[in-house]
Amino acid sequence: MLGTTYEKQNCSAARALEVVGERWSLLILRDALFRGMTRFSEFERSLGLAPNVLAKRLEGFVVAGLLEKSTDDGGHLDHYRPTEKGLAFKPVIVALTAWGDRWAAPHGPPVHFEHEGCRGHVDYRLRCAKCKEAPRLRRVVAVPNRGRKPQ
Amino acid sequence: MLGTTYEKQNCSAARALEVVGERWSLLILRDALFRGMTRFSEFERSLGLAPNVLAKRLEGFVVAGLLEKSTDDGGHLDHYRPTEKGLAFKPVIVALTAWGDRWAAPHGPPVHFEHEGCRGHVDYRLRCAKCKEAPRLRRVVAVPNRGRKPQ
Repeated sequence: MLGTTYEKQNCSAARALEVVGERWSLLILRDALFRGMTRFSEFERSLGLAPNVLAKRLEGFVVAGLLEKSTDDGGHLDHYRPTEKGLAFKPVIVALTAWGDRWAAPHGPPVHFEHEGCRGHVDYRLRCAKCKEAPRLRRVVAVPNRGRKPQ
Repeated sequence: MLGTTYEKQNCSAARALEVVGERWSLLILRDALFRGMTRFSEFERSLGLAPNVLAKRLEGFVVAGLLEKSTDDGGHLDHYRPTEKGLAFKPVIVALTAWGDRWAAPHGPPVHFEHEGCRGHVDYRLRCAKCKEAPRLRRVVAVPNRGRKPQ
């Protein structure tokens, strides 16, 4: 984890990046959240990552509470499974994927997201709670909450 | 930029991270997209970042087509302004912020997002195109597109 790299930033995106902002972190989460991977060797094969880096990232996620580690198969094999806090990163990965699909996938999107069971396509919407519309991106702005001083 | 770090990953999220996955990149975009910053000195003040790192990130965004550089004020001052491709990262930052608000903001969210003009709150939802519901996170899965071989 990046730990306190962004500690001077009073910003929830910075807090999130302190947990997932290191190289490979979000791709490890992608495999854990969307591809059902739980074992060290599965992540290693998927990512081609040096074992010491992968071990460090997985343990970081366990400490941060995004994955939980359990030992199955008669005590021989560790599994890393997403917690609720880890699952909550799914929307971030869906949004990143949507950007890549639109701007960096000349041969079309490699995957799409589905609602398990229902099998409908899952995408995301920005939505204005007042006018109920999907606002144009230029018109979405960040506004400090009362009583707080965002930097 | 991370460039081709993740080139073996046939994955749009990996493509996106090659553009924004370096340290500070997404926070620079946050300032450009949501805080109206355009000048080097504004980003520097906001982030407390070494000038050489900031310059490298900004130029990387210009090369990648996320920001465009123009010289105003009689040729004395560079401005970096988001392109459509850059604006398209807004949902990623909204989703990251939502995670941080929920899991890492003990004193409450520092900012919220608003629909400019209308002033309604803007949030981010996953939506199933078939049943029109917001699917439970555990039930959102990635499915390879026909004719492609995601890794």
